[in-house]
Amino acid sequence: MRFVVSKEQFLKALNAANHAIVLKNPIPTLANFKLELSEKGLEVTGSNSEITIRSIVPYRNGEDEVIRNAGMGSALINSKLLLEGVRKMSGSEISVDIIDESIAKVGDGKTSYKFACVKAEEYPDIDLDPDGTVLDLPTSDFASLVEATAFAASNKEQARPVLTALNLEAANGELSAVATDSARLAKKAISVDEDVKFRANIPARVLVDITRLFEGAKTVSMAISSTKALFRFENTTVSTRLIAGDYPVTKAIIPQNFNYYLEVSASELLSAMDRASVTSNDQPVVTLTMMEESVRVSSKNDLSGSAEESLSTCRFTGERLQISFNSLFVSDAIRALKSDDVTLCFQGEMKPFVVRDPSNPSVVELITPMRTY
Amino acid sequence: MRFVVSKEQFLKALNAANHAIVLKNPIPTLANFKLELSEKGLEVTGSNSEITIRSIVPYRNGEDEVIRNAGMGSALINSKLLLEGVRKMSGSEISVDIIDESIAKVGDGKTSYKFACVKAEEYPDIDLDPDGTVLDLPTSDFASLVEATAFAASNKEQARPVLTALNLEAANGELSAVATDSARLAKKAISVDEDVKFRANIPARVLVDITRLFEGAKTVSMAISSTKALFRFENTTVSTRLIAGDYPVTKAIIPQNFNYYLEVSASELLSAMDRASVTSNDQPVVTLTMMEESVRVSSKNDLSGSAEESLSTCRFTGERLQISFNSLFVSDAIRALKSDDVTLCFQGEMKPFVVRDPSNPSVVELITPMRTY
Repeated sequence: MRFVVSKEQFLKALNAANHAIVLKNPIPTLANFKLELSEKGLEVTGSNSEITIRSIVPYRNGEDEVIRNAGMGSALINSKLLLEGVRKMSGSEISVDIIDESIAKVGDGKTSYKFACVKAEEYPDIDLDPDGTVLDLPTSDFASLVEATAFAASNKEQARPVLTALNLEAANGELSAVATDSARLAKKAISVDEDVKFRANIPARVLVDITRLFEGAKTVSMAISSTKALFRFENTTVSTRLIAGDYPVTKAIIPQNFNYYLEVSASELLSAMDRASVTSNDQPVVTLTMMEESVRVSSKNDLSGSAEESLSTCRFTGERLQISFNSLFVSDAIRALKSDDVTLCFQGEMKPFVVRDPSNPSVVELITPMRTY
Repeated sequence: MRFVVSKEQFLKALNAANHAIVLKNPIPTLANFKLELSEKGLEVTGSNSEITIRSIVPYRNGEDEVIRNAGMGSALINSKLLLEGVRKMSGSEISVDIIDESIAKVGDGKTSYKFACVKAEEYPDIDLDPDGTVLDLPTSDFASLVEATAFAASNKEQARPVLTALNLEAANGELSAVATDSARLAKKAISVDEDVKFRANIPARVLVDITRLFEGAKTVSMAISSTKALFRFENTTVSTRLIAGDYPVTKAIIPQNFNYYLEVSASELLSAMDRASVTSNDQPVVTLTMMEESVRVSSKNDLSGSAEESLSTCRFTGERLQISFNSLFVSDAIRALKSDDVTLCFQGEMKPFVVRDPSNPSVVELITPMRTY
């Protein structure tokens, strides 16, 4: 295999595929990029066996020649060396030349690297063909589903693996995404075709990674089978295993009726909670004491001290209510809503409450309060 | 004690004193700031028993009132809580009020903190009076001495503690600073009064910290005794213990005569070494192969591969020479010189070489080469 490729396009593909590579993978060949030059273009693949990312550099990009001087073939090259080398070279074109199936000469005309390389046959066989139910979505819709929910998934792989997933479910013309770590829950739904129907537990952090790879892509094509999910956008394909296990039924958990409403400026509540959490140790517990005349944000820690202030830009409707919570949960929820104003809807003391964007009912951010006495 | 103080001035003093505070100090009272309000102003002290920093907030700053509503007194307040609280409050003035010698009320009119506090008497007695030889220097001279040399000090406290120091020596109208970790050495000298005479091993990282606190200060006044060094600039005083032990005699180590000279663009050599180090493991070993016609930068690693390129903006004088070194040492030296062009002066293979700014002979950066065969 040999080729000369635009550094910018090559680096973009390497960076994308690199998202799937983990250092110290138990399978040593997965520390490599798989490069394969065929009629389709230059395929760059990275994988950690659970997630695989393949990005294709095409021969031409409109008028511009992207790959020239091509000789078909394939090879495995250490991902760290190749990525760092290409990143650091200053030329606008990179040449790659595989010698005797064992050495990759990589250069930009000025710098010349020789990296040890391996035959592509040693790479595991990874199926990147779409399978199962297919759904095309605007990337902006897909990203908004993930950004509104994925943060609420658990990051504790050991405890209940299924809670590290985002539960995607399409039915009755609606695609909903749900994440919960059992102390909080985030849900967002969008409209899709009536006849699309699937259910899948997809690792939440893979979905976050995918949204980061979208760049200019307009549409993402999902294919969900019973064992894997595949995402295609522009020149990139991402495949991920699904997480086994039944996702908890969350519909009944989300309250519909509330007795208290706090409408508040998002930034004011965020900074008040940030100030109140100065006195907290690991878990920043903040208390809201709400009356129609005034709303107080406070915290108290027996060892270090206390903090207290009143909110100025807010309106509370309901009887006096006092409620404590992990302020990181509320600030995550507020940030995910991306709204200048938010409404906190309470059922009562010690009952889960909801943080909402008043102008967008499609997102529900549910939080369980904490006992402070 | 009680006072109302400009947030900006208070925060500046807290940040300065905080440089001396280390988390998990074996002496628990040193986790606090000592605040003392007297006729002199508000003294904020932080210490880790080896280094002490005191910053004074004056009552007035020219026309502006900085401290008002003052009631004399003192207290110890947890440094992390006070610093974070003051940093996060949004008001322009901060009020501090010590209640019953056990609670510090700290607020900005909106947020109100109560921090546990302790009597100032529990703080260790720290002498911040100048003692020994006194020398006043422009802060820019002091900073240039430290920046050209401190990076070459050892950071391995356990091995030979004296090598973690910068050796400052004033004699015969010259003040010289020397740092060495035994594989490299940096030295810079400036002119001072003929009659100033002292010698001290001062922890290198304390001196770096001091230069970061200079801000607008024009002059620093040093006082060096046999056990401590004191630095005063503007409203801040820094005291540090000296490091015991004889500093190695370095004068004889620095070569005076060279047989080979490489004049090169600093940025080109830096980026060529950076690219060559892609294939290296922990210690980036780079080889220069120099002839009058061409200069090659290369590296080779049996496991990962090799890198090679030629320098374009350089001139080499002398016979063919090949020399290998830890490229981090050379890049540290080049950065410390802050010059667009540098000259590498060699005696021969396997002999220490010097990196110099051709227009500034007052700085010597000496590096020991490495064997690669």
